Amino acid sequence: MTDTVPTTDVESAVLEACRRAKVASRALATLTRADKDAALHAMADALVASAERIVDANARDLERGRAQDMSPGLLDRLALTPERIGTIAQALRYLAGLPDPVGEIKRGSTLPNGLRLMQKATPMGVVGMIYEARPNVTVDAAGLALKSGNAAVLRGGSAAASSNEVIVEVLQEALETSGLPRDAVQSIDAYGREGARVLMNARGLVDVLVPRGGRELIQAVVRDSTVPAIETGEGNCHVYLDASAPLERSVDIVLNSKAQRVGVCNAAETLLVHRDAAARVLPAVAASLAEAGVTLHADARASAAAGVETVPATEEDWATEYLSLDLAVRVVDSLDEAIDHIQRYSTGHTEAIVTEDIGAAEQFVSRLDTAAVLVNASTRFTDGGQFGLGAEIGISTQKLHARGPMGLAELTTTKWIVYGDGHVRD
Amino acid sequence: MTDTVPTTDVESAVLEACRRAKVASRALATLTRADKDAALHAMADALVASAERIVDANARDLERGRAQDMSPGLLDRLALTPERIGTIAQALRYLAGLPDPVGEIKRGSTLPNGLRLMQKATPMGVVGMIYEARPNVTVDAAGLALKSGNAAVLRGGSAAASSNEVIVEVLQEALETSGLPRDAVQSIDAYGREGARVLMNARGLVDVLVPRGGRELIQAVVRDSTVPAIETGEGNCHVYLDASAPLERSVDIVLNSKAQRVGVCNAAETLLVHRDAAARVLPAVAASLAEAGVTLHADARASAAAGVETVPATEEDWATEYLSLDLAVRVVDSLDEAIDHIQRYSTGHTEAIVTEDIGAAEQFVSRLDTAAVLVNASTRFTDGGQFGLGAEIGISTQKLHARGPMGLAELTTTKWIVYGDGHVRD
Repeated sequence: MTDTVPTTDVESAVLEACRRAKVASRALATLTRADKDAALHAMADALVASAERIVDANARDLERGRAQDMSPGLLDRLALTPERIGTIAQALRYLAGLPDPVGEIKRGSTLPNGLRLMQKATPMGVVGMIYEARPNVTVDAAGLALKSGNAAVLRGGSAAASSNEVIVEVLQEALETSGLPRDAVQSIDAYGREGARVLMNARGLVDVLVPRGGRELIQAVVRDSTVPAIETGEGNCHVYLDASAPLERSVDIVLNSKAQRVGVCNAAETLLVHRDAAARVLPAVAASLAEAGVTLHADARASAAAGVETVPATEEDWATEYLSLDLAVRVVDSLDEAIDHIQRYSTGHTEAIVTEDIGAAEQFVSRLDTAAVLVNASTRFTDGGQFGLGAEIGISTQKLHARGPMGLAELTTTKWIVYGDGHVRD
Repeated sequence: MTDTVPTTDVESAVLEACRRAKVASRALATLTRADKDAALHAMADALVASAERIVDANARDLERGRAQDMSPGLLDRLALTPERIGTIAQALRYLAGLPDPVGEIKRGSTLPNGLRLMQKATPMGVVGMIYEARPNVTVDAAGLALKSGNAAVLRGGSAAASSNEVIVEVLQEALETSGLPRDAVQSIDAYGREGARVLMNARGLVDVLVPRGGRELIQAVVRDSTVPAIETGEGNCHVYLDASAPLERSVDIVLNSKAQRVGVCNAAETLLVHRDAAARVLPAVAASLAEAGVTLHADARASAAAGVETVPATEEDWATEYLSLDLAVRVVDSLDEAIDHIQRYSTGHTEAIVTEDIGAAEQFVSRLDTAAVLVNASTRFTDGGQFGLGAEIGISTQKLHARGPMGLAELTTTKWIVYGDGHVRD
């Protein structure tokens, strides 16, 4: 599709879509919660009612994927069934049940001169999403944006283009039926990479970009955008077993952090073990990991203590987000050395310590500059759903605006509202 | 200075400064409030004690400025006297009196599974500042960064290079005397524009960039940075006199918004008047403005109603941030037309309405997408000091992270801290 639209036409078409989104966003910003929730239910109903049409479109994407030798894992993430569509629709109904993030008063006071000041949560305006070939993200992003009063301009992976096209049509029909502007949700998939580039530079029309996907996609968005972007999801997460780490808890937390689900950003990628705990806990930890099929990339001391076969760890291992059944393992001489290692290699997503020592826990928590630091809990808990945010659009690994799991509140900004009585400045 | 340092050396020198700032930031992040406040007082004392040395350096900048035909206004902003240095030092003492923004618990709860969750304010890490030739900003930025637990890497205008060099030396000596890392405050002025470019792209070392200055400087930073930057200060601010606007209040608020101080971002640049109020209020408003020396750039209807001499307004006037004794004036047919006009031309800084109509006030407040919306008060109140934030590093006109006046809290990010009891995910 991409190649048939000349560049200048792509630019004007994408900018026009963004402009229409901006206009729609003004209507969305002042909707009541009841209006938004009704639209979310209508969108869910429409997806279920259109399941056949969506599955047909998805079949075309799958066929193209197979012809291009897409991996079974990617094909599975791309595939939609009526059952999966039902689950996706259910997520919209769940969103409808969440409180409205818009309108919350964040701060407020009456100033000494009598001015009445409040800082109120308001929608961002237009949210741009750039993501890979997962059609469920199309619905999630549209729903999260709508609930937070924002218009969404979506650029999904080209491998899911047919699915996304039909899904967006269905959502737009539901928006219209609900009396909302159909431009509240738009796809620019038809404009390919050049369209994405225009979106990333539609400063003034697009208020925030949220990339979701692999490292390369996110880095490209961060590097090439003039629209403010939020870096998400890169997770070189660490578990540190302190000198005092209890055996059973160490086994449970390491195994869960690494192997409960691989391929997710909050899975552990490096295990650090205090030298005083290595002989005591590492054999059982390593045995449980080996049983789960995990390959250990170990330094010399870890290898010696592990009691299972390991491969030698290189410098590269410490910096790698495997997203697979691999784990780097290193024995450290102290808590300080563990913190130094993490400061050096972490992507700032999640780190966990297993300890019975309150001082070690406090040092670990206060000194690490990471979005989420956990004490005696699995790294897998860093998640919007687990944190009780209700929904999640991504996990921010940057410090500006949002850090860690981003829910509805993170898709809002604030506005200062000031009521005076003819006040002028001296 | 710039031209004597080769590019590759500039790059490595600036990156090295950023790296040292990152190391210093780790120590700053866990300082107590008492430590930080003591250092702020030491910095203030040192500035006062070194006033002569600073004034000497400043004289060299002023001399260079005069030789380069710098305008009297710019020379005045550049000039330091012992008295001005005293005022600058006093601002540091005032900062010491403010609460510590670090450590505040923003949200927290015990999750259904017993995990204890809290979101805590933490320093950003390294704050980069790029600003123009105002040596007071050097001290302000250093103080605000320190109080919020951040290291600062400063790039001031080259016209103030001698002043800034000595000021930073004095501050670093005070930091050392207080037992804090001298790398907590560093200047990269010696590396010129190329140094600024390196700073803007020191992603991973610098956590946030705050440009302060004119439109061109800010746009250049926003365009050329890969480090997240906060757009500040561009203010095409509007005052709207509604149909119900009372006469005296209209005069007071318009005059104060425009003329209490020109050349500041929260001064009004366009006056919109409802047609039903034009004949009643515009003559008195225009007369008071004319008396204050303000030139009105008026559309035909405003010109007819004003009763003073005006110049014709062009399309360009609506979009201009004059920062001078000029004001664009337009008569509109309705509140809707006023809102449309503002949505089209505003930079999203500040808008004010003068009205007695609660419905008009609510429409104005809820529909405008602007950092600060004021009802019956002068635009000049959009200011960190006026809002009671205690201190201000800039006024954000973007929506990500901070919006409106940015105080100490806006120089922090958050960290999620989770305490479990061996928790693993099902």
